[in-house]
Amino acid sequence: MKEAGEVGRLLAGRGAILVCGGLGGIMEAASRGMKSEGGLTVGILPHDHKDRANVYIDVPIATGLGTARNTIIARTADAVIAIGGEYGTLSEIAFALQMGKPVVGIKTWDIRGVVQVENAEAAVQKSFQLLNAGTWSSDRQD
Amino acid sequence: MKEAGEVGRLLAGRGAILVCGGLGGIMEAASRGMKSEGGLTVGILPHDHKDRANVYIDVPIATGLGTARNTIIARTADAVIAIGGEYGTLSEIAFALQMGKPVVGIKTWDIRGVVQVENAEAAVQKSFQLLNAGTWSSDRQD
Amino acid sequence: MKEAGEVGRLLAGRGAILVCGGLGGIMEAASRGMKSEGGLTVGILPHDHKDRANVYIDVPIATGLGTARNTIIARTADAVIAIGGEYGTLSEIAFALQMGKPVVGIKTWDIRGVVQVENAEAAVQKSFQLLNAGTWSSDRQD
Amino acid sequence: MKEAGEVGRLLAGRGAILVCGGLGGIMEAASRGMKSEGGLTVGILPHDHKDRANVYIDVPIATGLGTARNTIIARTADAVIAIGGEYGTLSEIAFALQMGKPVVGIKTWDIRGVVQVENAEAAVQKSFQLLNAGTWSSDRQD
Repeated sequence: MKEAGEVGRLLAGRGAILVCGGLGGIMEAASRGMKSEGGLTVGILPHDHKDRANVYIDVPIATGLGTARNTIIARTADAVIAIGGEYGTLSEIAFALQMGKPVVGIKTWDIRGVVQVENAEAAVQKSFQLLNAGTWSSDRQD
Repeated sequence: MKEAGEVGRLLAGRGAILVCGGLGGIMEAASRGMKSEGGLTVGILPHDHKDRANVYIDVPIATGLGTARNTIIARTADAVIAIGGEYGTLSEIAFALQMGKPVVGIKTWDIRGVVQVENAEAAVQKSFQLLNAGTWSSDRQD
Repeated sequence: MKEAGEVGRLLAGRGAILVCGGLGGIMEAASRGMKSEGGLTVGILPHDHKDRANVYIDVPIATGLGTARNTIIARTADAVIAIGGEYGTLSEIAFALQMGKPVVGIKTWDIRGVVQVENAEAAVQKSFQLLNAGTWSSDRQD
Repeated sequence: MKEAGEVGRLLAGRGAILVCGGLGGIMEAASRGMKSEGGLTVGILPHDHKDRANVYIDVPIATGLGTARNTIIARTADAVIAIGGEYGTLSEIAFALQMGKPVVGIKTWDIRGVVQVENAEAAVQKSFQLLNAGTWSSDRQD
């Protein structure tokens, strides 16, 4: 939670847009951090309606797709910072790595391809470093 | 086209967010109008990647769903203004009406439930009037 | 309803697979007709779980996409027979026409591109005739 | 590959329906095994069109969703047998576990919740055992 808020604050400081699932917990903590520094927050919701978004979401997207919306989060983000997380987070990690996008993790799933770091500052720094270095591989559907 | 740009300008003047398909033609004209007045534009793209968005899109969402993304546009918008349009527009009209959302049309499909108007000014005014009056019906899946 | 059951029976007689939304009403009537002649039925459900399918569905697909599953019905079918119908049916018609697929209608939406017929027999005959004649246009996403 | 074909044959022998991604490699090997014993095969394709399915697919579903179709595979299956696999398989494992469905693995991702077995026979036996024992947890969207 603490790290999520800090990730939000640091991303805002760098002028990034936060794309997340738009609900509570880690998503809300990161969104709140983002707004505290005046950043823009996008919530890709599983629901049919926007009113389920947390109060820190500027642009709620009502996908109505349930957890299939995780693929849209992975497709829309330039890089993924995974914090803790259950199986939903695991699916986002899988999709982002499948698309060849940088995935940085803080206390999250230990999956080949995830760059594990200790805290928010390292996560944000590493994400931008990977993006700037970045050659992305093409999508695959296998 | 002319009406689309004017719709964008008028929506920006009222502090609305423009949600559209993010591509060219009517979508681009509306987005350009929106940006000319400093509004915020969201493009719900059919593609896997954001780089297909028109240059006036602030928040591109890479759905990767193809035309199924039309349902997300209808779910995310509070009201729909349909301008001209082919079958893709017809699917958006259908989804919005199914959800009980206001749909205002300028030279578009003549479908029961669409409020037809003559120009951009009438479209924006009518949309807000319907939203303010608004009791929305619940979603159906038939 | 009567026409839907007859469409199912006639399609089964021609060895076709029935692809529908898998729920009640017209969908159930067509599925029941199909099964009465030993045909195969596929239900593309809006729900997360298969247990919402009508009892005549052999292959339930739990999309969890809500009404966005209508696009999958249109993509999966070779031709569409629309019977009556509300806005959900209209969205399926729109998607099928967008993909250049034959759409035959019985007492349904009067949309440019839909071939209107009087009854089940004419609908099935016309569908196969159009498929056999068929040059399909390519998909569009506008 | 060898294990995939054997899984298909064993599932057919038990009267199961095979639900897979419908493409080549492991998916094709399992489908071929299934058909060799007269079973029914369903291919949930990423593409807009059915013609990309492997030749052993009886019921191709053209989702047009790209890799987001992996969620539909997980939602539609009663149990998941994961064989080898890259990130796409990982996303399917994640979704199935999120829905509380049994996931059995042969030489696949080592994820908490996956029941690892040595070969096809053990995989099929274990899957049915878990299904019969089965209390499923409810879906979550976190």
